[in-house]
Amino acid sequence: MVSAAIIGATGYTGIELFGLVSRHPEVNVAYASSEQYKGQRITEVFPHLNPAHDISLCGSGEIDAKTIDVVFFCTPDGVAMKQAGYFLDHGIRVIDVSPDFRFDSAEVYTNWYKNDHTSPELLAGTVYGIPELNRQKIREAVLIGNPGCYPTSVILGLAPLLEARAVDPKHIIVDAKSGVSGAGRGVKLRNLFVEVNDSITPYNIGHSHRHVGEIEQELTKLAGIQPFVIFSPHLTPMNRGILSTIYVRLNEDLSTDDLHEIYKRKYVDEPFIRLQSCFPETRFVAGTNFCDMKVQRVEGTDQAIVTCAIDNLVKGAAGQAVQNMNVMLGYSETTGLL
Amino acid sequence: MVSAAIIGATGYTGIELFGLVSRHPEVNVAYASSEQYKGQRITEVFPHLNPAHDISLCGSGEIDAKTIDVVFFCTPDGVAMKQAGYFLDHGIRVIDVSPDFRFDSAEVYTNWYKNDHTSPELLAGTVYGIPELNRQKIREAVLIGNPGCYPTSVILGLAPLLEARAVDPKHIIVDAKSGVSGAGRGVKLRNLFVEVNDSITPYNIGHSHRHVGEIEQELTKLAGIQPFVIFSPHLTPMNRGILSTIYVRLNEDLSTDDLHEIYKRKYVDEPFIRLQSCFPETRFVAGTNFCDMKVQRVEGTDQAIVTCAIDNLVKGAAGQAVQNMNVMLGYSETTGLL
Amino acid sequence: MVSAAIIGATGYTGIELFGLVSRHPEVNVAYASSEQYKGQRITEVFPHLNPAHDISLCGSGEIDAKTIDVVFFCTPDGVAMKQAGYFLDHGIRVIDVSPDFRFDSAEVYTNWYKNDHTSPELLAGTVYGIPELNRQKIREAVLIGNPGCYPTSVILGLAPLLEARAVDPKHIIVDAKSGVSGAGRGVKLRNLFVEVNDSITPYNIGHSHRHVGEIEQELTKLAGIQPFVIFSPHLTPMNRGILSTIYVRLNEDLSTDDLHEIYKRKYVDEPFIRLQSCFPETRFVAGTNFCDMKVQRVEGTDQAIVTCAIDNLVKGAAGQAVQNMNVMLGYSETTGLL
Amino acid sequence: MVSAAIIGATGYTGIELFGLVSRHPEVNVAYASSEQYKGQRITEVFPHLNPAHDISLCGSGEIDAKTIDVVFFCTPDGVAMKQAGYFLDHGIRVIDVSPDFRFDSAEVYTNWYKNDHTSPELLAGTVYGIPELNRQKIREAVLIGNPGCYPTSVILGLAPLLEARAVDPKHIIVDAKSGVSGAGRGVKLRNLFVEVNDSITPYNIGHSHRHVGEIEQELTKLAGIQPFVIFSPHLTPMNRGILSTIYVRLNEDLSTDDLHEIYKRKYVDEPFIRLQSCFPETRFVAGTNFCDMKVQRVEGTDQAIVTCAIDNLVKGAAGQAVQNMNVMLGYSETTGLL
Repeated sequence: MVSAAIIGATGYTGIELFGLVSRHPEVNVAYASSEQYKGQRITEVFPHLNPAHDISLCGSGEIDAKTIDVVFFCTPDGVAMKQAGYFLDHGIRVIDVSPDFRFDSAEVYTNWYKNDHTSPELLAGTVYGIPELNRQKIREAVLIGNPGCYPTSVILGLAPLLEARAVDPKHIIVDAKSGVSGAGRGVKLRNLFVEVNDSITPYNIGHSHRHVGEIEQELTKLAGIQPFVIFSPHLTPMNRGILSTIYVRLNEDLSTDDLHEIYKRKYVDEPFIRLQSCFPETRFVAGTNFCDMKVQRVEGTDQAIVTCAIDNLVKGAAGQAVQNMNVMLGYSETTGLL
Repeated sequence: MVSAAIIGATGYTGIELFGLVSRHPEVNVAYASSEQYKGQRITEVFPHLNPAHDISLCGSGEIDAKTIDVVFFCTPDGVAMKQAGYFLDHGIRVIDVSPDFRFDSAEVYTNWYKNDHTSPELLAGTVYGIPELNRQKIREAVLIGNPGCYPTSVILGLAPLLEARAVDPKHIIVDAKSGVSGAGRGVKLRNLFVEVNDSITPYNIGHSHRHVGEIEQELTKLAGIQPFVIFSPHLTPMNRGILSTIYVRLNEDLSTDDLHEIYKRKYVDEPFIRLQSCFPETRFVAGTNFCDMKVQRVEGTDQAIVTCAIDNLVKGAAGQAVQNMNVMLGYSETTGLL
Repeated sequence: MVSAAIIGATGYTGIELFGLVSRHPEVNVAYASSEQYKGQRITEVFPHLNPAHDISLCGSGEIDAKTIDVVFFCTPDGVAMKQAGYFLDHGIRVIDVSPDFRFDSAEVYTNWYKNDHTSPELLAGTVYGIPELNRQKIREAVLIGNPGCYPTSVILGLAPLLEARAVDPKHIIVDAKSGVSGAGRGVKLRNLFVEVNDSITPYNIGHSHRHVGEIEQELTKLAGIQPFVIFSPHLTPMNRGILSTIYVRLNEDLSTDDLHEIYKRKYVDEPFIRLQSCFPETRFVAGTNFCDMKVQRVEGTDQAIVTCAIDNLVKGAAGQAVQNMNVMLGYSETTGLL
Repeated sequence: MVSAAIIGATGYTGIELFGLVSRHPEVNVAYASSEQYKGQRITEVFPHLNPAHDISLCGSGEIDAKTIDVVFFCTPDGVAMKQAGYFLDHGIRVIDVSPDFRFDSAEVYTNWYKNDHTSPELLAGTVYGIPELNRQKIREAVLIGNPGCYPTSVILGLAPLLEARAVDPKHIIVDAKSGVSGAGRGVKLRNLFVEVNDSITPYNIGHSHRHVGEIEQELTKLAGIQPFVIFSPHLTPMNRGILSTIYVRLNEDLSTDDLHEIYKRKYVDEPFIRLQSCFPETRFVAGTNFCDMKVQRVEGTDQAIVTCAIDNLVKGAAGQAVQNMNVMLGYSETTGLL
């Protein structure tokens, strides 16, 4: 039995992670921190939780590093980079669900996030936590940068095609639709019910959303060259879920069957990837760690389309964090996730 | 042609009123104020508006009283009570869509709103603005307290039965369901999409919601005695609309047909009240000034049930304000509202 | 390891039950039947399912009674009454999630459902499956009538007060709000997205909904006399959940604390009942077998209000069916449900 | 004053059109037909309607051609093609809101709709009813093929760029999101609330949706050559609205400002087209005949993105039909639409 601390347990990702880890048979939640609600019982703030998992929320300063084995950061940008070193020094494994440790280079981080990185020396030792692509490295890692929600759907959706050199990395278009929990539990006009309900809203369309940097960094590793991704997110009136509709140009004449075969070869043994014959819908993955996808050729063109659905809070955040923990700690990868 | 000012034009009620008054054939919007957005064009903040109605938002201090005939307050509690006197002194008619002038007594106001009333001397001269009940007084009024949204649905729903002395005013139960715009455009966790969507939420159930005071004050006038209203509001995942399901005890043996007849007598000539044979649904009144209702006896009991639906932003706020203005200024009551 | 058959596995209740039983550690789903989809893989029809649980849908006639231990009916009215006897004759336990075996008397069934009951001789041996109230009988039962969704919320919400003789059973008002899955997966205009979204709809208000008969039958057993329940259901734009707001008249002067104490005494050891200090919201119980409730006195009156929330598909149907199975078969009552 | 008949008045488009024409100051609705509801008052079926506009629904065979001036078809495919000739023979103007008269060639119609066209001789005389592009022809037309909802948003969104020869017509990608009313009021499992709510659903992605034929036909006229359009529709949990996100390849080096200038030149005098500086959202056009759009260059690429929002039932169907009628009959184009 392993002890975990969750720092930032009362955002949408934090509370999702708290639920998953609480139900995990091999892990005990020793600490759940929240600067906003510290001192309250977590079931007071989130009455949906199983009362058997109740715990008092603490401040992150109250965590006794000697008593824990793994720490998760579900904090806003800029927090994990300041605190991770302390835990690493105590020999504790760190899984950062915030953006702080997703980048190989502090400069690229600063370009997209407009902050200086305060622990650039740690970046070389971090592993980008997509188990389907980096499983071996995750096994040996002590510091994981857990991927963003949009990047998870895009990178998993494109990996087979890029690795197979089947498409042109310079001309990728991602039209993505996200549920509102993706915007976080921060209190902003944009996320009020009346502003979102019964409507669909494009935002940061083109090449400006902060996830573009992360996507292009990881696709570079898969493609061997620097890609260019047009990325168009849309806020959709649903709580959870991301659907990425991805348009690519084929390098060679591959049929839908050929393309499907490429995906099957890559993902056949992956427990969380389902190649669907129908189109993925976000409701099919809601509350699960599954990533559903479908690939098709557009007849008469050099274009293919990949549709890829995940739950932004699970495979796009908390579920993938648990999957990473399972890999790091040597548990079966699906423990606590099915 | 009459000139109007709207103070607080950028809340949900304010912008609804702006749209209605802009389309009104007899009225010109001379000023729309917003402390938050002053200096911006109103179509920048609300791109749904007809560009032909565009105007620059001003601060309320910039309104030149000499150039207007009527002023609407769509402000939070406590603003109109401070500013109304100034406009009244200039001979301008005031329609207060906030709660400040809905009460006959400053004490009752303070009991429910926990503020002192700064203009108690004006209360005696105000008229509670439900045209269906107070039309004659509205015609002669210079200061209207425009009713709250829940109270509008409850008072209209009960007026025929109370005036006919058909039910016991001491035992009224109102189970009300409101769309989220009723909570205003203020930025609160409770109103975030993810907190409201796909769920239903009771709040302030019993005898504690601030609208209870207003409801009981007006029902007293109809019933001749002080009533007691149990009032249970529920936040419902929809933008607009209030449905009040009202349970009453009959004083005499009246059938559904008898009850319907009482409503018909009362409301037959009312342009905005529709007695429905099917159950009212909020979608049927959305965007309109209609109030739909249905009354029925529960066979084998002394109970009757009234269901009553309005759009909280129209008949429950901005539409009724325009209706009041029409009555005050001598226009046909439905002008700009059908 | 026990083998189960689910008859009618592709309605909303059926598929919820399939998911729960598939994940149950002690039970194997041997058959899942669907007249509409027979021959298809269940993951083709419901791609959200874990592929590890895939099975071919069969016709109900293909079930080999010799190979199963328990059968669930998730069928429309009138099916289970014809088929249950066959399974009982083979010594198989039957849990009927349809309305066919909820009534003690065939006449009462016929009054409310307008069908003749074809197996009235089985009614005497059935047990009404609310474990919190009938646990001992369920242990020994071979045929369970699994309660309706609305009745579950109302009966659990009122049991402590009626058993304590604290309220008048003749004057109960239930204002209930249900998610749309309660209307089933049948294809009707009333359940189209556009007809339901962004609106709230009363229906069958008064004393006419078919669940009234079931509610009054069970409340009679708790109260010792025949009650009268005014029941007002409202279709609410959400997928799942029932919130019942219940208005009762107190027989004696009990404070909110006194009332809370009565509930605590009754339910303190119940694993699925949570007495909440905040108001129950359907999102807090969504996807779980929990029943959340809160009771309060209305000061200055003889009235109390109970708010009670369940997931209509889980505690109101499939989850309670599994809970019943656990009790019947001697498993821990929460197995597969937390 | 002109008399109109609406054939098929009780689908989502039909009832929207009925509302618009009823409020039109120059037109009287003489007939509203519905094979399903004939004999009923239209306010019984649609209680939201203004009672002043009530009318008895008739069968389409009961329409007396001698008493009307214009007829609208809001019928399923294949009806208008059989009945239009009769009305044309009586000198009545026909506006077909169904797909029957949108195609220049019966072969193309049959390719996409899999039906034979029974009145191919009428196709030569029809005009495709987008007033912004075909105003002069509409003025002289007697038979209008009113555009589909998706095509309206795509054609208006691309017209300036194609006419200016600024983009490559062979490489157009349209990622479109539609509200559920676009699927019609027919009773299908796919459109049930529970199947759609809180999820997003791709369908017919690639080059297979029936609107592709219509889009490519009209874009050919604008571009001068046959285009190729990849078209990916997504069912979105909202009642109304279409957002098309359109990806194009520029033929020359044009900045966002240059592109905006092209749109301004084309649309500056159009009363229903609003070039927005913020991104279009479907809620901004809901219930209106406006088409909101924004164009932008993706820096560092040869790509531009157009976002374009309409209400599928208004500018995408009934509102555009009224706009066409206004043009045909010589009224101001915005009459009854603002």
